[in-house]
Order: sequence, then C-alpha cells, then structure tokens
Amino acid sequence: MEPILYDYFRSSAAFRVRIALRLKGVDYAAREVHLLRDGGEQHGDAYRSVSPAELVPAYDDGTGPITQSLAILEYLEETRPLPPLLPATPRERAFVRSVALSVACDIHPLCNLRVQQQLGAAFGASEDARVAWLRHWIALGLRAVEAMLAGHPRSSPFAHGDLPTMADLCIVPQVTNALRFGCDLTFVPLITALYEHAMSLPAFALSAPDACAPSL
Amino acid sequence: MEPILYDYFRSSAAFRVRIALRLKGVDYAAREVHLLRDGGEQHGDAYRSVSPAELVPAYDDGTGPITQSLAILEYLEETRPLPPLLPATPRERAFVRSVALSVACDIHPLCNLRVQQQLGAAFGASEDARVAWLRHWIALGLRAVEAMLAGHPRSSPFAHGDLPTMADLCIVPQVTNALRFGCDLTFVPLITALYEHAMSLPAFALSAPDACAPSL
Repeated sequence: MEPILYDYFRSSAAFRVRIALRLKGVDYAAREVHLLRDGGEQHGDAYRSVSPAELVPAYDDGTGPITQSLAILEYLEETRPLPPLLPATPRERAFVRSVALSVACDIHPLCNLRVQQQLGAAFGASEDARVAWLRHWIALGLRAVEAMLAGHPRSSPFAHGDLPTMADLCIVPQVTNALRFGCDLTFVPLITALYEHAMSLPAFALSAPDACAPSL
Repeated sequence: MEPILYDYFRSSAAFRVRIALRLKGVDYAAREVHLLRDGGEQHGDAYRSVSPAELVPAYDDGTGPITQSLAILEYLEETRPLPPLLPATPRERAFVRSVALSVACDIHPLCNLRVQQQLGAAFGASEDARVAWLRHWIALGLRAVEAMLAGHPRSSPFAHGDLPTMADLCIVPQVTNALRFGCDLTFVPLITALYEHAMSLPAFALSAPDACAPSL
C-alpha cells in the first residue's frame, strides 16, 4: 500500500516528517486530522485507534501505525536509508540527536495546542499570557540550541555540515512556529541562517504549514 | 578516561541513563549536579559549558559531553551494543522508540522542575495546582502508553518481550515520579506490572532516586 501520513498542516511535529518523506522521495497519502474541527478530530474513536495519545503525526506504510515523529524519522532512516538524515559516526549522530531532542523534548511539548488549552483551563491564562508562556520556552530552548551549534565545528549551512539531518528537521519547524508567535530571533543568528538556507530548498519549503494548508 | 555521568538523583531523565549504564556494565563516575542547591547548580557557568540547556543528564566518555537522555541511550546502544536496548527489526524498534518518546516528549517535559517553577512565576500557581497539573499530564500520558502496550503482542514482562528496552527505561522512572506525586495508577495495570517486574531487578532498583540520593 501507499504509505499514509496522518497529518495536520500546523503541527510542527508533522512538519518534521513531511520534510523527511520529501527528502527521501517517499510517495505518500496525507490524511488530514484537523486538530480544531469538531472539538479536535484527534480525539475521535477513529484516530485514537491509530494514535492512543491522540496526537499527530502518525505514519503507516502497511505494517501498522507508528506514532511519535522522531520514532518515524528513525524508522524511515532504517528502512529508506538514502539520503541519510543521520551522519556517519556514533559521536556525530549523538550530536544530531541531541539537537533534535532539545527541540522535541525541551521546546515543542511546552508549546503545543493541548498545553495552551490546559493553561487556560487550569489557570485561566489569557491569550497574552499563553503567548508569553510560549515565547519564554522558545527563547530558552533556541538559546540552548544556538549554543550547541556555536560549539560544533560544522554547523553551517546545516546543523551538521552540508546535508540536512534530523536536527534541521526539528529546528526548522520550531523556527516557523516561533515566527508565527512573533518571537524575537535576533539572538540566534546561526539558527536564523540555517532556517533561511533550509527554506530555500523545496523539501523544506513545500512541507511548511503555509504550503500544506487544507483548501476550503 | 572513565565515563562521567552528570547526574541528579531525582531526575527521571538521568534515571533512564543510570539504568542503561548498569545494564550494559559501564563503569562510570557520577558527578552530582544539584538542581536545588545555590539556585540550581545546573545554571552555573561550569555546567552550562557541559549542557547549554542547563539540564541533566549529560554523559562524557572522553569524546565530549552528550546531552539529552535519549541521545545518550542511542549512543550507548551504538558504541556498547550488548545487551541490546532495542529489538532486532525496524518495526519493533519503532514501537520501542515510540513508547520511549511518548514518555520523554508527552509527559516528562510538562512535569519537570523548571516547568513547575514557571507555573508559579507566570500564573501564581499554588503547590496544589502544580501537583494537579502534573497529575493531569501523567494520567493522560500513561493512559496512552497503557493503550500502546495493550495493542502490542509482546508487552510482558517488559514493554517488548523478555528483555528491557529503551521503552522500559523511560516508563519505569516516569512511574517512580508518578508514585512520588500520589498519582492513581489503578487504571494502568500493564504499566504497574511492568514497573514491579523491572524494580525487582538490580539494574533498575539500584538506579532509582532513593538508592542514589546523595549522602549529607
């Protein structure tokens, strides 16, 4: 069967996987799971059988659904190794995974939709307060990633040299999200340059939320 | 040099790595980074040069520090493959990583110390409100992990069969944390059984916070 990506255009976790599928030349069918329609399609019985956590993305190449964007990236890397999204040595791979996880664990989970909703429900957080919360974690996290890149000998044009890796697949969607929420990015020049370089390439640009918004 | 683990006994991310090092028989020196002493030793200049994100754990076997617990686990797996912490096939590995990341991305980042501190700073959240916040995310996340285990043919005694994998190395510390905060776990019987089995083994029990608390 043709692989299925359970997708939502604004999800930065899904954005990571869309880039990987394009880079690796995998033809797939996108199945939109609209996170805001009907109280959230991700919470319906149909999608819960795909993703018990009720989160996008999920990927199914006919062997059953895989959830968690980084697990999907590792699976794609093992089953469709070219072009590689991880470098050659264990130490280099550790750097790439460390950067990817710094975004995926330390920034993104604190900023996604369900957390914003819970801040409202639990603390009555206003829209302004929720945006301030997002900006706090994005700034803190991107500052750390910038320092990791600054300490790495090959952090240009991508996080590890000339080819995109899982690190870039996490950084770029996070920057897109930061821009959406009006974050100041002047203090992370390496990240900004990386983002601009990546977005000049079709695999990144065509996977971005604005390029993937569902038609009405 | 002898590998160094930058550690904090209560950190469930560090707990994951302690289990892996014991299972793989790696002798290491633990260097305690006390997250509450002197405003947090993780925020000092010395540790920031190890971990720009100012988070534990970090691991250094002489090739430079690696941050992010799951990146450390993957690095250990690649450099010290026995006993394996990932199963044999890509599809099985995807399951294991998906469970591990469900804990590492969907539960742990929402419950750690800096988030509790920020809930207080940004919203004046009381101790009770912060515990309620933790319990909300732990319950939601563990319920999803329980469903993942229930849908998997080999989820006993460990998440994937007879041997511990990265999935168990994430689940067990999260359960320890859940118990610390008085979470009801009666609704996750597979996870509870897995936890009890794992904690009967020295590699898990000797890595737990209570066994690793610094002496006064």
